[in-house]
Amino acid sequence: MMRTADIIIKKRDGGTLSADEIRHMVQDCVSGRIPDYQMTAWLMAIYFRGMSFAELAVLTEAMVHSGQVHDLSSIPFRKVDKHSTGGVGDKVSLILAPLVASSGVPVPMVSGRALGHTGGTLDKLEAIPGFNVHLDAEQFREQVGRIGVAMIGQSESFVPADRKMYALRDVTGTVESIPLISASIMSKKIAAGIDALVMDVKTGNGAFMAKAKDAERLARTLVAIGREVGMPVVALLTDMSQPLGRAVGNAVEVVESIECLKARGPDDLREIVLALGAEMLVLGKMAESVAQAREKLIECLNQGKALETFARMVAAQGGDPHIIEDQSLLIPGDLREETVTADRSGIVASFDTRRIGLASMVLGAGRQTVDDRIDHAVGLYIEKKLGERVSSSEPLCRILYRDPNKMKRAREMISEAIAISDAPAAPPCLVKFRVDADDLARGTGRGENE
Amino acid sequence: MMRTADIIIKKRDGGTLSADEIRHMVQDCVSGRIPDYQMTAWLMAIYFRGMSFAELAVLTEAMVHSGQVHDLSSIPFRKVDKHSTGGVGDKVSLILAPLVASSGVPVPMVSGRALGHTGGTLDKLEAIPGFNVHLDAEQFREQVGRIGVAMIGQSESFVPADRKMYALRDVTGTVESIPLISASIMSKKIAAGIDALVMDVKTGNGAFMAKAKDAERLARTLVAIGREVGMPVVALLTDMSQPLGRAVGNAVEVVESIECLKARGPDDLREIVLALGAEMLVLGKMAESVAQAREKLIECLNQGKALETFARMVAAQGGDPHIIEDQSLLIPGDLREETVTADRSGIVASFDTRRIGLASMVLGAGRQTVDDRIDHAVGLYIEKKLGERVSSSEPLCRILYRDPNKMKRAREMISEAIAISDAPAAPPCLVKFRVDADDLARGTGRGENE
Repeated sequence: MMRTADIIIKKRDGGTLSADEIRHMVQDCVSGRIPDYQMTAWLMAIYFRGMSFAELAVLTEAMVHSGQVHDLSSIPFRKVDKHSTGGVGDKVSLILAPLVASSGVPVPMVSGRALGHTGGTLDKLEAIPGFNVHLDAEQFREQVGRIGVAMIGQSESFVPADRKMYALRDVTGTVESIPLISASIMSKKIAAGIDALVMDVKTGNGAFMAKAKDAERLARTLVAIGREVGMPVVALLTDMSQPLGRAVGNAVEVVESIECLKARGPDDLREIVLALGAEMLVLGKMAESVAQAREKLIECLNQGKALETFARMVAAQGGDPHIIEDQSLLIPGDLREETVTADRSGIVASFDTRRIGLASMVLGAGRQTVDDRIDHAVGLYIEKKLGERVSSSEPLCRILYRDPNKMKRAREMISEAIAISDAPAAPPCLVKFRVDADDLARGTGRGENE
Repeated sequence: MMRTADIIIKKRDGGTLSADEIRHMVQDCVSGRIPDYQMTAWLMAIYFRGMSFAELAVLTEAMVHSGQVHDLSSIPFRKVDKHSTGGVGDKVSLILAPLVASSGVPVPMVSGRALGHTGGTLDKLEAIPGFNVHLDAEQFREQVGRIGVAMIGQSESFVPADRKMYALRDVTGTVESIPLISASIMSKKIAAGIDALVMDVKTGNGAFMAKAKDAERLARTLVAIGREVGMPVVALLTDMSQPLGRAVGNAVEVVESIECLKARGPDDLREIVLALGAEMLVLGKMAESVAQAREKLIECLNQGKALETFARMVAAQGGDPHIIEDQSLLIPGDLREETVTADRSGIVASFDTRRIGLASMVLGAGRQTVDDRIDHAVGLYIEKKLGERVSSSEPLCRILYRDPNKMKRAREMISEAIAISDAPAAPPCLVKFRVDADDLARGTGRGENE
């Protein structure tokens, strides 16, 4: 008989757990046979001792098999998803998923919600009147097969081990564990039924992992778990030292995403979309190189194919496709607008990006706790980004708001979060580092300093 | 509002907890306001990060105040107790408590039970027909005042925080934490209402802390907590590389204890009793030096005062004092006896002391789990100890048993646990190290190598 206490002690002492031991912990945690107080001690021991890539692969697969797994094998072609660790103004999925699908690679995307300073794809989608993120497994499979893309949330039965473990970690100080974060992400991606994954690991002061070193370790761990379980993963470390694009909120980000799908939109957003999308096309075997993939993606944008796929997806999921031409369907006319202006002339030197995200949350566009309700219409537009010149009294940020008190708090936060200096500043490097399974074997990756 | 998760994270990150934070954890754990799964994660964080002496003092006092505390202030003189970390053949308390009491220092002793390879004072006392270890607080106080000594167990309401925390630690891999062990011991000793404490920290292969370094760290931590809370503590590190004395069991240990109280009995046992007792007399201010204290103790033994106090205590707690003259009241005649003999001539070179303790447990004298019942009559006599010469076929150990199958297992274990070699071996140094609060300030202690 396997004694749970012995497994905890083994990990506590830095030992490597067997597959049976790890499966025992995950399965019996979900079934309730292992009491929560043993699970949390075990998770804390993992926090301190870590897990080998082989242990993490077993942990991930045990989590995957704790619930129903999407079976998309009837859909031809390789299914590829993108997952982001979350940031401010990160509306990449809304553009990327239909774009990649329109290029021939099916994208079955399972997304999350806003929490704290970061937004969530599901909330942005729900800014579209009528849009339904709750498809069942069969509807999901059918839509991905027919349109090439579906974007949904997690049902209650989706990876219950992750749900249970995360709830325990959240209240016992073991959220900030790169091994546990990696297993959590990978279990949900594998359970979604995909064949390959591109990870967008955000780094900088608006990311969950502010330190580049931690972000890089997370990227390597995700790629390594993928290698162990036989799923190709490419991770890009991308910049989150300022909001991505200019819109921060929900409806405002949908508007900006539609601009981008129309081959317009901010350069940095477009560049990140193309970089991630090119990796997805290569993983989906619809392009032989990243360069070829980029050409194909740009073509799809220019020919309106990406926008068309987006429109079909919106319609298929109950949303009103007229939003594509009529912004007033997204952002009602009764919203008020306030401008944050520069108190001096100079060059935008830095953002406290996390604070910008929190300001958006304060306005009502995000959630402080999982139970908070979101106002999809409110949001921000960043008028000046890093390295841009600004004159005194020129707008730095526009705030779309309803509640003047919330606006005042947000305005103050935004004002404090943007620093202007005299020194010229270059815009940040957008893709800082790339790592795939081959890099892992060589112990390297391609980064900006190499 | 204090967030439990933040306190866990603070300790996880190596921070020093405030008194309020520690009290919150202990009080709300006992009240049930903090769920067990947060408590176990916190305890695991302490396992990895430790606690400062100041934190441990707050933890200890918070544990003390989780339940009723014995108030012995109406008894004149300083009350002093001895506590042992546990060993094999460790019947010291049975001799020491009445001896020290007969020398004028009241000894209010709260003891524990056998578990695993170690025996327990309560079980040994219960080998005396009629002996009652369940006195209530008033009976306890009254008896210590009248006779100078009472030996009891822990009631359900005694340090409930320790009870709860230990039960959680036992199943979540955090028993082996020197800070947590220290707080557990000290909380129970302080709650017993004593003024000073002598700690017998066992070291060697029969002790819970086999490594001398760990035992020394435990000793220093106990002394330090005592210093922080204002209770003088002297700790002796004593030998547990072989059973103490010759008897291992319950009734057999009572018989040997009575021998010792009659100023006979094995030398090593007598020496440990005198060393610990001398410290107790000095702490109790009934002697000015350890040397003077030893003289006084020897006098009490030689004049029969210690034995008389023992007899009064036995009678007061419902036991039959005739056991002092009539061993058959302790060890019934229907027990069978088996001898383990030497398979070669030579000198006893080493004991696997833990294995001897487990053999006694297998016979029925101990407990594998807390729910096991004990047979008080069965036990062992070690006939040859470290450094003693033995001829082939001479007895090494006598086994008093009832069940032949249990005897066979025990015999095999004992046979394997005693090694004989040709090289002459000195008996081990009995008291290896001494540490008190002054040593702590100097960062030293007096050990065998100094």
